[in-house]
Amino acid sequence: MFTGLCAFPLTPFHHEKIDFHAFEKLIGNLKQANVESICAMGSTGLYPYLSRDELAKVTKTSVEIAGNTPVMVGIGSLRSYDVLKNAEAAQQAGANALLLAPVSYHPLHEAEVFALYEKVTAEISVPLCVYENPGVTQFSFSDELYRQVTQLPNVGAIKIPGMPFADTNADGNGNAAGKARLSSLRNIVPEHVAIGVSGDKFGALGMQAGCDLWLSVLGGLFPNTVKTMIALSQSTSSQAAIAESERLTPLWDLFARNKGGMRVMATAAAILGYTETNCLPHPLQPLQVEDKQKLEAILTQLSLD
Amino acid sequence: MFTGLCAFPLTPFHHEKIDFHAFEKLIGNLKQANVESICAMGSTGLYPYLSRDELAKVTKTSVEIAGNTPVMVGIGSLRSYDVLKNAEAAQQAGANALLLAPVSYHPLHEAEVFALYEKVTAEISVPLCVYENPGVTQFSFSDELYRQVTQLPNVGAIKIPGMPFADTNADGNGNAAGKARLSSLRNIVPEHVAIGVSGDKFGALGMQAGCDLWLSVLGGLFPNTVKTMIALSQSTSSQAAIAESERLTPLWDLFARNKGGMRVMATAAAILGYTETNCLPHPLQPLQVEDKQKLEAILTQLSLD
Repeated sequence: MFTGLCAFPLTPFHHEKIDFHAFEKLIGNLKQANVESICAMGSTGLYPYLSRDELAKVTKTSVEIAGNTPVMVGIGSLRSYDVLKNAEAAQQAGANALLLAPVSYHPLHEAEVFALYEKVTAEISVPLCVYENPGVTQFSFSDELYRQVTQLPNVGAIKIPGMPFADTNADGNGNAAGKARLSSLRNIVPEHVAIGVSGDKFGALGMQAGCDLWLSVLGGLFPNTVKTMIALSQSTSSQAAIAESERLTPLWDLFARNKGGMRVMATAAAILGYTETNCLPHPLQPLQVEDKQKLEAILTQLSLD
Repeated sequence: MFTGLCAFPLTPFHHEKIDFHAFEKLIGNLKQANVESICAMGSTGLYPYLSRDELAKVTKTSVEIAGNTPVMVGIGSLRSYDVLKNAEAAQQAGANALLLAPVSYHPLHEAEVFALYEKVTAEISVPLCVYENPGVTQFSFSDELYRQVTQLPNVGAIKIPGMPFADTNADGNGNAAGKARLSSLRNIVPEHVAIGVSGDKFGALGMQAGCDLWLSVLGGLFPNTVKTMIALSQSTSSQAAIAESERLTPLWDLFARNKGGMRVMATAAAILGYTETNCLPHPLQPLQVEDKQKLEAILTQLSLD
């Protein structure tokens, strides 16, 4: 299942309760686009904000609507005890894979992160995607930690954070970092473990550089746009993939100004009629007026799908 | 209650359950030292790691053992909905004050943080301490946000992060930053709102510079050591307070190497026989061998109390 587009939809709220009606429409859209997999309740799907009961219900709904499309579920929590309970609830509700970031309040040491993965992988029966996202966990994986963690049982994929993958280094900002990291990880990570790119701005070039899948926030709402970029990245028209990604620069800028894509996609989902105007749980807020207007213009101009 | 030493004890665990026997000893030690207040379940007390039921039980135990000593309780959570539920549980269990940090997974915008405090302060009936700790929340308060938040009802104190308070700026690293910030905040924050210093390394100089209270991790286990520094800071022997704080430099270094004082105090509590050898919930770990040996030497040499 760790190939192509793994779409990360929102978990929409309405008056502090999960809006299952809106959620079903979001999953239905992904199913219709024939995405390779769906990560219900990734960071964009707000897994750490949900109770275990909510996690189980959203998993069940996702699996029902997704049909044959594999569903991955985020299970991260501050205590390993709760991660294991989440894993159990998600598996019982039919999850095909689990996504686990080293969620922290007190930032974690490397030995603690390894201990977390060691404990969890020993007790699960579906593949796990190791999830690096220092923007939300304050933790970066060393190559050595990746080596250790990907040797654990049931590890099926790693999700590396967004980084530039360009060939050239024209701007002097280390644009080739992604290629070097990917090459280094390919030598470390066992062959059966997929390497996924995230950070949508870097997705097209990451796929072109050889990542196995693109774990995409944009793809959670606009799957066809991302699928087109993946197809171009893997074809002889790789320049077209880069051009398509560059065409979306106004959107990537909006992501950057809003600490990631979550609030942008929540606002877009409301604009498109999938959800209520504010579909986030308090205190999270959709885009403010100025950025919302920019987003409306972007949605009109870019023909996202 | 927002004066002198506010002691931040651990919430010790044993086999993933709260070790109430050890906790009662820790609170008893603080009661005996006659600290001005106790923050049961601050960051060191692991409030975000606890279920609501655990939060209520620990609050109840703290209040029972603490007697006349006021007890503050951390109520932060990712969703305002859960913060309000925590506030209700803590107040019903007898908490005299509440501590609220803008806990995040997706880092928060300023408007979201204000909305959080606005919602919570409208619904509580005991004083609230606004808690800035960018090391765990990835959020720093602007002066303007402090101005807005401290005008809300029920705000009794703010807890500013550790920063250098020295008079001189001999090393060119902005050592007077603390004094400037404190002076700026005094002009912004209403008189009835106390300003507390945290980051134990900076506590003695912060108190000397005029902070109203010291919210102390070290004081959660060694209250008399901190009380002595506070007394010296507020006496004519302020140089002695600085000397005493500098005497503890090996301890501050150990805090810095271990991402804060929590793991150091958890290890110290075990060495002193208050708790089991590992009193933290998985995946958190006490100090590793080398640092534990350093800590043992420090405890022998520094006569902390």
